[in-house]
Amino acid sequence: MSTISPLARPFPAMPPVAGVRIGTATAGYKAWTRADVTLVEFAPGTTVAGVTTKSKCPSPEVDWCRAALTGGSARALVVNAGNSNAFTGRSGREASQAQVDRAAALVGCTSGEVFAASTGVIGVPLPADKATAGVAAAYAALGSASFEDATHAIGTTDTFAKGATATAFIGATRVTVCGIVKGSGMIAPDMATMLGFIFTDASVAAPLLQTMLSAATEQTFNAITVDSDTSTSDTVLAFATGAAGNSPISAVDDPGADGFAAALTDVCRKLAQLVVRDGEGATKFVTVTVEGAEDDRAAKVVAMSIANSPLVKTAIAGGDANWGRVVMAVGKAGEAADRDRLDISFGPTLVATRGAVVDGYDEAPVARHLSGTEIEIGVDLHLGHGRARVWTCDLTHGYISINGDYRS
Amino acid sequence: MSTISPLARPFPAMPPVAGVRIGTATAGYKAWTRADVTLVEFAPGTTVAGVTTKSKCPSPEVDWCRAALTGGSARALVVNAGNSNAFTGRSGREASQAQVDRAAALVGCTSGEVFAASTGVIGVPLPADKATAGVAAAYAALGSASFEDATHAIGTTDTFAKGATATAFIGATRVTVCGIVKGSGMIAPDMATMLGFIFTDASVAAPLLQTMLSAATEQTFNAITVDSDTSTSDTVLAFATGAAGNSPISAVDDPGADGFAAALTDVCRKLAQLVVRDGEGATKFVTVTVEGAEDDRAAKVVAMSIANSPLVKTAIAGGDANWGRVVMAVGKAGEAADRDRLDISFGPTLVATRGAVVDGYDEAPVARHLSGTEIEIGVDLHLGHGRARVWTCDLTHGYISINGDYRS
Repeated sequence: MSTISPLARPFPAMPPVAGVRIGTATAGYKAWTRADVTLVEFAPGTTVAGVTTKSKCPSPEVDWCRAALTGGSARALVVNAGNSNAFTGRSGREASQAQVDRAAALVGCTSGEVFAASTGVIGVPLPADKATAGVAAAYAALGSASFEDATHAIGTTDTFAKGATATAFIGATRVTVCGIVKGSGMIAPDMATMLGFIFTDASVAAPLLQTMLSAATEQTFNAITVDSDTSTSDTVLAFATGAAGNSPISAVDDPGADGFAAALTDVCRKLAQLVVRDGEGATKFVTVTVEGAEDDRAAKVVAMSIANSPLVKTAIAGGDANWGRVVMAVGKAGEAADRDRLDISFGPTLVATRGAVVDGYDEAPVARHLSGTEIEIGVDLHLGHGRARVWTCDLTHGYISINGDYRS
Repeated sequence: MSTISPLARPFPAMPPVAGVRIGTATAGYKAWTRADVTLVEFAPGTTVAGVTTKSKCPSPEVDWCRAALTGGSARALVVNAGNSNAFTGRSGREASQAQVDRAAALVGCTSGEVFAASTGVIGVPLPADKATAGVAAAYAALGSASFEDATHAIGTTDTFAKGATATAFIGATRVTVCGIVKGSGMIAPDMATMLGFIFTDASVAAPLLQTMLSAATEQTFNAITVDSDTSTSDTVLAFATGAAGNSPISAVDDPGADGFAAALTDVCRKLAQLVVRDGEGATKFVTVTVEGAEDDRAAKVVAMSIANSPLVKTAIAGGDANWGRVVMAVGKAGEAADRDRLDISFGPTLVATRGAVVDGYDEAPVARHLSGTEIEIGVDLHLGHGRARVWTCDLTHGYISINGDYRS
C-alpha cells in the first residue's frame, strides 16, 4: 500500500459473524506475494441482497451478480484483486464462470448461489487457471482469515483497511453487522473500484434485506464522490446467515426490523465515509449539507453538484472560503434555486445570506475552519423541506499525481 | 496576463465591421492601469441575438440581457472586467442599471437597447461610480479601439487574446463576421467566465439571427468543457448592423442564409476552441468524437461524459493510452451503450473493438499520438447514427495550482 491517507481511521475491533468463514490465497494476478483472492463461505440458508454500478458497461462479474441476486440465496463470495476483468469479452466471461463453477463445486452448492467481484486492471481477461487454482487454495484456508485479512486481500490502491461494525436487537436476540469495503477513487480502472461486503448473523428474508440495503445505499454509498467517475465494477452485497437464531424478519414493520435497518445503514455510512477518507490525494474530508430544497431528491442533486465541482474541491484544498464557487455549483445543478434566498455557511459560520455576503463578514473564523481536515459546507435554499447530506474530499496535486503522472 | 498557454494561437487579422465602433477605458475595478471597461456602439437598426448561462443563479447582467433580448434591437454593449457583480443583491442590480442607463443616455437610445456583461470577482457589488464614469470615458474613446484592444479589455485570467473572423456572400454582397471571446475555465468566479461577442455587418432579422446563434452555440460554445463547472455569467451575444447593405434575410431558406449561418458557426467554433486552448493548466487540446449513438443528443451526452471525466483528463495529461477510462466514461454517461459493440480509438489507431482490446495491440503508435498536443479520442457505439464532437483539455497540476494553491 502507498502512503497512508492523512484522513485514515484505524480498523475497528470486528467480531466474527456466525455462519461466515473466510479464506484468502495468492492467485498471483500480479507479480506479488500478497493474498489476492478471497473466498467467503456462508451457512446454508444465507440470504443475499445487492446493489451494483449504474454503468452501462459493467464487468461480467456485475452481470453475474445481478442475475444471481434474483435467487436471493448465497453460499459463497469470491473476490479477485489485481484484475477487474472488465471489458474483456468472451474470454473474461468464461474465466469468471469457471471460477464461480469451481467455488460452487468446492462449497457444494449451485453456481447461482456464488457471488463474484473483481477489481484491478481493466481490459485484461481474468486468467482462468490462476482464478480456479486461487479459489481452491482459498477454500483450503477457510476459517483462517479475519475480516481485516479479507479487507487487505480485496484491496488494490487502498492506503488503509476499512471496516465497520454495529449491533442491534431483534426481539431478545442480539445480532451483529460487520462490513468491509475497498476503494479510493470512485474509480481508477487500473487498480480501483468500490466493493463493499456486509455480513450479518441476523435472519432476514432476502426481499426485506434488499429493501433495506437499497435504502441504505441511497444515503450512504450513493452519497459519496471522490471524482465523479463511476466504475464498471462497483458492487455492494449484504449476506444474512440467520445463525443468530432470531425470529426471522421479512417485513419493514416486523419487530426489530427498524433497529436492524439502522445498524445496517450505520455500517454502510461508516464504510462509505471511509472510502472518501481514502480518496485519491485527499487531505480534507468534506460534508455537504443542503436544506430547504423542493424535495430530498433535488437537495441531493444540488449537494452532489457542490461535492463534484472541481472548483469547489480545489478551493477547499487551498483553504479558501470561496463561497462564490458554491453559488456557482448550486446554480449549475439545474434544480430550482433562488439566488436571492440562498444561505451559505462554512462550518458554524454563515457566510452569505439572501443572495449576498453577510454584513460585516469576518473571514477569520471561516479560514480557521478551512485550515482543519473536517470541513462542513452548508446551503439553505429556503424553498421547501428537501434535505440531503453527502460526503467528498478535496481535489489536490496528489490526485493528479496518482492518476496522471505516468511520465514523471 | 500570466504565462501564455502552450496551446495559444495568434490573434487573427480582423477587419473592422461597418456600423461597429469600440471604445475602452480604465474604470479601475482593481488596482491596475489596464483598460477594464469596454463600450461598443452599434448603428441604428442593429439586430441582436443571445444565449446565456443555464445557471439557476445568474448575475444581474444576465437577467438584464435576457430581458433586453426580447426587444431584438441593440445600440450598445458594455463589458466590465474585474468584477462579475454576481451574487451582489440589490446594490449590484442598481449599479448595473445605472451603468446601462448612462450608456443609453450617451449613445442616445433606450436602456432596453443596451446589453451588459461583467466578469471577475463574485460577491462584490459593481461600484456604481466607477462603472458610470468608466462607460463615459469609453464613450469618449469610441472609434479608437480595435477588436484586439477590446479582447484585452474584456479579458481576466485569459493568457492570450482570442478572436476569429469569417466572410460569406448574401446575394452579391460580401458580409463579414468577427468574434471575440474571453474565458479560460468554464468558470473561476474569482476572475473568469466565458463571454463571447460576435459582430457582423450583415442585415439579418433578429429572430433568424437567434435561430442561427442558438444552433451554432449548441455545437460550439455548448460543446466545450474545461472543468465541467458553469459560470453564473456566461453570455454570448451576436450583433448584426446591416451596414453591408445586403438584401435583408429573415428566414432560414432565404438566399444566402445558409452561407451566413456557416460563417457564424465557423466563428463560434473557432472561438469556442480557443477557450479550451486557454483552459486553466491545459497542455493538450482534446477532440472527442462519438459516433453510432442512438441519436445526436445521446452522442453528445456520451462525448461530454468522456470530456468531463477527471480520470480521462488526467490520463491524457500523463500521455497514457488508458482506454479503460474511456469505457468507464461511456458507461457512466447513462445513455444506451453495449459493451460488446464498443470501438475506441486514439488518433488514427483503433485500440479496442467489440468490447475487448484489438488483437496484437501495439501501444507504440498510440503513445506517439498521446505525446503530442492535439489529441483525438474516437468512440463508435455501433447502435445508430447519432454523432457528436466536443472539445476539452487535459487536467494537470497547473489546474490545481491556479485554482487551489492559495496558501502556497
